[in-house]
Amino acid sequence: MKDKKTIGAGLRGVVAGQTAICTCGINGSGLTYRGYDINDLAKFSSFEEVSFLLMCGKLPTKHELANFTQDIVKYRKLPAQLKELLENMPKDSNPMDVLRTGGSFLGVIEPETSFTEELEKAKRLLGAFPSMLGYWYNYANHQKRIDETKGGDSVASYLLTTLTNQQVSDENQRCMDVSLILYAEHEFNASTFVCRVCAATLSDYFSAIIGGIGTLRGPLHGGANEAAMELISRFKTPAEASQKVKQALVEKEKIMGFGHAVYSKSDPRNLVIKEWAKKLSLKHSDSNLFAISESIEKLMWDEKKLFPNLDFYSATAYHFMGISTELFTPLFVISRTSGWSSHIFEQRKNNRLIRPNAEYIGPEPTSYTPINER
Amino acid sequence: MKDKKTIGAGLRGVVAGQTAICTCGINGSGLTYRGYDINDLAKFSSFEEVSFLLMCGKLPTKHELANFTQDIVKYRKLPAQLKELLENMPKDSNPMDVLRTGGSFLGVIEPETSFTEELEKAKRLLGAFPSMLGYWYNYANHQKRIDETKGGDSVASYLLTTLTNQQVSDENQRCMDVSLILYAEHEFNASTFVCRVCAATLSDYFSAIIGGIGTLRGPLHGGANEAAMELISRFKTPAEASQKVKQALVEKEKIMGFGHAVYSKSDPRNLVIKEWAKKLSLKHSDSNLFAISESIEKLMWDEKKLFPNLDFYSATAYHFMGISTELFTPLFVISRTSGWSSHIFEQRKNNRLIRPNAEYIGPEPTSYTPINER
Repeated sequence: MKDKKTIGAGLRGVVAGQTAICTCGINGSGLTYRGYDINDLAKFSSFEEVSFLLMCGKLPTKHELANFTQDIVKYRKLPAQLKELLENMPKDSNPMDVLRTGGSFLGVIEPETSFTEELEKAKRLLGAFPSMLGYWYNYANHQKRIDETKGGDSVASYLLTTLTNQQVSDENQRCMDVSLILYAEHEFNASTFVCRVCAATLSDYFSAIIGGIGTLRGPLHGGANEAAMELISRFKTPAEASQKVKQALVEKEKIMGFGHAVYSKSDPRNLVIKEWAKKLSLKHSDSNLFAISESIEKLMWDEKKLFPNLDFYSATAYHFMGISTELFTPLFVISRTSGWSSHIFEQRKNNRLIRPNAEYIGPEPTSYTPINER
Repeated sequence: MKDKKTIGAGLRGVVAGQTAICTCGINGSGLTYRGYDINDLAKFSSFEEVSFLLMCGKLPTKHELANFTQDIVKYRKLPAQLKELLENMPKDSNPMDVLRTGGSFLGVIEPETSFTEELEKAKRLLGAFPSMLGYWYNYANHQKRIDETKGGDSVASYLLTTLTNQQVSDENQRCMDVSLILYAEHEFNASTFVCRVCAATLSDYFSAIIGGIGTLRGPLHGGANEAAMELISRFKTPAEASQKVKQALVEKEKIMGFGHAVYSKSDPRNLVIKEWAKKLSLKHSDSNLFAISESIEKLMWDEKKLFPNLDFYSATAYHFMGISTELFTPLFVISRTSGWSSHIFEQRKNNRLIRPNAEYIGPEPTSYTPINER
């Protein structure tokens, strides 16, 4: 019984299936997609190339990459009824709910009728999630109906074009691309696991992705980058940050963006995004924010031996790129759609229904009392 | 490593957490909700009472039940934008997608802003899912905008009123009520497990339920009752059914509605719903259908030692009540919303992020090849 209870605690350490997509935290650190080290991909690759790699299992040729990229651009176009739906979602909607609902509606009017369509549907969402977000965001905030098909020829440039007021610099565009690469895939994390449990009932592609979005929405998962931004924004100086976070720890406040369920020593994605956050901070008026982030990092290590995960410096980097905080987790959705899709495809190829058991701790068998005798 | 692989196969037999809601298949058979035997509940209780029992942990007093029932009736009312959305969903939409999207949109315009609202939101969906389904079904099929607030004072009567053309007899209404009771809860099945994985990230109530719907949609889960109906409808006589299903088994066709991931001897819900299917068949012109179902049951036992699960005779019973086959799984959603909600509440009370591991079977570390060299 003791063993059972240990296993029951969040399935930590339990192998729930096989995957050929990703290694995550082997020997406590390290991240590879299809065998490629995340540092190489962040240095040399693009989000489109990484999406192809994850979903198709190999790096694309020049020709394949051009077609793949073109398809995603083509799939930005949204049906009129979907735009109508987006216009009916108020400004104060949670943008995660916007993507969850918009994606679900797309699954109504453009359903996956056979699993042979799965790659096409994935490209559809890689094109349509950015345009849904951009269309809704501009309509809700500026009453502006954007032409959702325009915005450069990469997902990174599109997001910066539609979601910020800044000129899209090469540096920002590359930083966004790198961030999308880093967030694209992470083995059996909670949202990906939901995609697989859903796909294992042989449900459709959209249902699995929608389940992933709803799960990523939680503050203990995708919501952590927004919580990190909220934390960093509270302070005016590194000294104040250090002092107040120390106080927050005493008061048992949960500090988001630190530690990880799988990594034990460091998050391999942190060094990459931290370097980018630093680079962008040098050109930004609010460069103090980077110093504040570093002071919190130092304090968390000194006090708790906790390292920053990807979410922590992503917050700073996104902020420097001019992205509103409430859009951080939706950007994570757009990136992770490629990882989720890969796992859905893989689950379908060698499927078994995922159905665990529970340990019962409820009342003993009881006899029914008629309502008049209660 | 051998152990790991066994564990990995669909988490079968792995304890993924604790629950006080339901026992399912203890000693190979039996089903209790909060300690009450399913046979007693099917005989004496109502769906509303069972929903209260599951979600609040005890049988309601007369007063509590009256309030609870009234709240569900009140919550049938749909916002105008939601009706507009439902009208934009074509007749050939998958009704599961309709509920997934409608429920998701309700989560946009009436979000759960604090976990203290969870019970209220659950009642909202217990009222609104039936009216979404009824409103969409009548509009899509008969271009009729129904008054979604009217249709008797129970979920069972409402469903029969809005989804069938038959006079709502006492017998049909009781059979529907019993079916909703039987489908309400079933421990850590795939869709409920998805609700819990989602809730464990501290995401909102709607996201968890939407994940449940998408998961239930799969033919290996909730879709089984529709597949059973499709099978039964193929045959004109019991003899033909017996012969052709035997042939189908030879050809390795999967016959839906038989066996179970947890029960090893019989499904305790089957006897109840089979008795109801038989009772309704006596009054129905198409009574042959029951005999066909029984002949398939006998054959599956003789050939495979497989017993019918709840889905098999539910198909026949729903058919006799005049419910269209494509609505069978959506009825399952409406019923299971009470079980899903109970598990979401329970997960939140004693939460830990659910994050399993994977066994890696992919390529060894590989160095990146520039695109021009591929």
